Amino acid sequence: MSENSIPAPGRIEPLRIAIAGLGTVGAGVIRLLNTNHDLIAARAGRPIEVVAVCARDRTQQRSVDITPFAWEDDMSALASRPDIDVMVELVGGSDGPALAASRAALSSGKGLVTANKAMIAHHGLALAELAEAGGVPLKFEAAVAGGIPVVKGLREGTSANALTKVYGILNGTCNYILSEMEETGADFAETLAEAQKLGYAEADPTFDIEGIDAAHKLSILAAIGFGARVDFGSVRTTGIVQVRAADIAQADALGFVIRLIAQADVEGEGADARLLQRVRPCLVAKDHPLAPVYGPTNAVVAEGNFSGRLLFQGAGAGDGPTASAVVADLIDIARTHGKSGEVGAPFSMPAAQLAALGPAEPGHRMERTYIRFTVNDRPGVLAEITAAMRDADVSIESLIQQGRANEGTEVLVAMVTHEGPERCVRQALDLLEGSDSLTGEPLVMPILPN
Amino acid sequence: MSENSIPAPGRIEPLRIAIAGLGTVGAGVIRLLNTNHDLIAARAGRPIEVVAVCARDRTQQRSVDITPFAWEDDMSALASRPDIDVMVELVGGSDGPALAASRAALSSGKGLVTANKAMIAHHGLALAELAEAGGVPLKFEAAVAGGIPVVKGLREGTSANALTKVYGILNGTCNYILSEMEETGADFAETLAEAQKLGYAEADPTFDIEGIDAAHKLSILAAIGFGARVDFGSVRTTGIVQVRAADIAQADALGFVIRLIAQADVEGEGADARLLQRVRPCLVAKDHPLAPVYGPTNAVVAEGNFSGRLLFQGAGAGDGPTASAVVADLIDIARTHGKSGEVGAPFSMPAAQLAALGPAEPGHRMERTYIRFTVNDRPGVLAEITAAMRDADVSIESLIQQGRANEGTEVLVAMVTHEGPERCVRQALDLLEGSDSLTGEPLVMPILPN
Repeated sequence: MSENSIPAPGRIEPLRIAIAGLGTVGAGVIRLLNTNHDLIAARAGRPIEVVAVCARDRTQQRSVDITPFAWEDDMSALASRPDIDVMVELVGGSDGPALAASRAALSSGKGLVTANKAMIAHHGLALAELAEAGGVPLKFEAAVAGGIPVVKGLREGTSANALTKVYGILNGTCNYILSEMEETGADFAETLAEAQKLGYAEADPTFDIEGIDAAHKLSILAAIGFGARVDFGSVRTTGIVQVRAADIAQADALGFVIRLIAQADVEGEGADARLLQRVRPCLVAKDHPLAPVYGPTNAVVAEGNFSGRLLFQGAGAGDGPTASAVVADLIDIARTHGKSGEVGAPFSMPAAQLAALGPAEPGHRMERTYIRFTVNDRPGVLAEITAAMRDADVSIESLIQQGRANEGTEVLVAMVTHEGPERCVRQALDLLEGSDSLTGEPLVMPILPN
Repeated sequence: MSENSIPAPGRIEPLRIAIAGLGTVGAGVIRLLNTNHDLIAARAGRPIEVVAVCARDRTQQRSVDITPFAWEDDMSALASRPDIDVMVELVGGSDGPALAASRAALSSGKGLVTANKAMIAHHGLALAELAEAGGVPLKFEAAVAGGIPVVKGLREGTSANALTKVYGILNGTCNYILSEMEETGADFAETLAEAQKLGYAEADPTFDIEGIDAAHKLSILAAIGFGARVDFGSVRTTGIVQVRAADIAQADALGFVIRLIAQADVEGEGADARLLQRVRPCLVAKDHPLAPVYGPTNAVVAEGNFSGRLLFQGAGAGDGPTASAVVADLIDIARTHGKSGEVGAPFSMPAAQLAALGPAEPGHRMERTYIRFTVNDRPGVLAEITAAMRDADVSIESLIQQGRANEGTEVLVAMVTHEGPERCVRQALDLLEGSDSLTGEPLVMPILPN
């Protein structure tokens, strides 16, 4: 097996890469490869060398020197250059040039390393098929949870286990906003504006605050963890826009914090197996390992049938952490001494063996639930709400009516239910639909089991 | 690159393994391979098959059926059987039969997967050299922190980073005892006895409670994280035997919990680089990620120059989690389609490139420190202690003298120092050495920086 022995340094070719996209992450990757150059060569068994780059504007002022690298205007041309082993795709966007160039790279025998969660969530299966057919690596550690090696954690660390569930905090913007609201008592809109000022939220924050970014990441983790085809389309997603300061105060009084939780599990077996994936704000008990996760930090819990509960935590975004994940993927590829022979399937098992699980219908799932209504302050409102609960078989554990939070006549009614089927809560809300006692949509947040 | 493409299921040979040692972990590995058989074959690209086993007593009643496997009385004979690809060593002990058989396996072209932290801490470098020379894999995920993929996390997950430090909770027995003392207010001896009754502590608990087990694990993580030769001999180790219920109460009042922390970092560069490794009980602020780690759980923090702070947490022991780590290593090996060609060096970089770092002398390190004296209750004792502190330039932040904790005339004096060089605290204690005011050794615990 001499082809597998560790080569003497300098005896073999560098791993030659091209980088598409030179924003903060692209610049971070170049800075990291420069700063830790010798260390990376020692660990990878050979140097990793940037050969060519591509970005929107060649003349833009950048924090790193790109003059040593060849320039390509066209990303797909970059992808199929004969002098590269791997393309690093840091452009983003689920379709368009990123996808075209990624296909071009894999089709022309190059490996692909990407931080593009939207592309993997939408086209991960097709890209994995392409990679497997060509015997080239496709890696996307940086697409999920920034610098936390959680794709590796699930693909390889828990590979011996049937996972019972995967869940966690996958969006740093939402976690920053929720933990700031907790800290300051400020309301959502104000905290979002502050987060935008500090760079923790985008000018258009929709993808983050509506939970779509977390849903992209969850669909990737679920595919790896459960051996299922990536199914972004069936993630049930609720964002954090409806969460008020009053909800956070109420949760705190009950011993909880509020976190946007992405969670996936499988129910049933064999042909009856169904995948449940959802992203929603949850009440998390203060002694749960996800409660002390503050600011833009991410954390993922994986529960295996032999490993038990594992927690991976760290920075969920930022140029340094994301570059760390990108270059870890490159080192994995460089360590195999074939031209670009990183081993094993991108989603842990071959694409052809990933199960096409239909989406699970969660109505029968048992949950404790926090429900908050905004109502007109007038007689009979509480009677109307509690009657709807009774008629839908929802058992109330505690109920609090708070004084007028805002100017006007609106008051808040918050309750926690006993454990019961989810469908009953939905039935109760259906019964109240259109009631002129309610001044807005009720907010429903499950209590995350410990 | 057709040799790297994902093979169709069933087209290739199983990975054939031998298991040495059939205690709880060995039985756990067999149970795991049976329970998750199909899943493992899908992820590994081929089945993993137990061919032969070896243990002390063939006739012993076991929780798993070993009749399908060939039996060997001699472990080294098992190791060199021509019909195996990998030996799994679960016998334990740093030397003796485990080491002989491990050498035999690697020398005869077999891969080695081991859970044996003592053997890797003492002989890891020599075994890695043997593995690299033969081009065969040597893997030991299960040797550190049970089911947590932290060897992989450091070897591959943070491979792009220069680590600034690695630290964590690496001994489940100590963490169980300390968090039980915290919970119940009971003293050390009583809690240890309870832990022994519940199976959380061995009949002879020395290796655990003196910090030696944590030191074994730390030396392995430090070697991987810092690219250094494993140097168990220079780990400075203090156990938890001296920690009293009163210390835990005192720490609690100050906003801390007590945890046995294993920590390593490198100071200086190039030829001046020195490795500091130590295991000692520390005060951990209640909002530090290691504070809410209770019971037999382990947790490791790695701080990289690009990744930032990463946390890995999970079950630190037990047959299920340990088997999960052993089989993850086997899947990694099986995924490479060579006979036993897992790629990359066992300690992340080739053994020949691991630096022989001398041990760092920590006297100049700045720390805040908790110091607890047990003293005779008589006039002048406080003056004597505080004078020694003054003379050694130790600045006291707070000082509490507690009433008589035990029968007799012994009282406790606890203080927290301002940040200052460690050597000053040692000088102060040297000045007090032999004083007949003190009734026992003072207990010194640093405050872990947040």
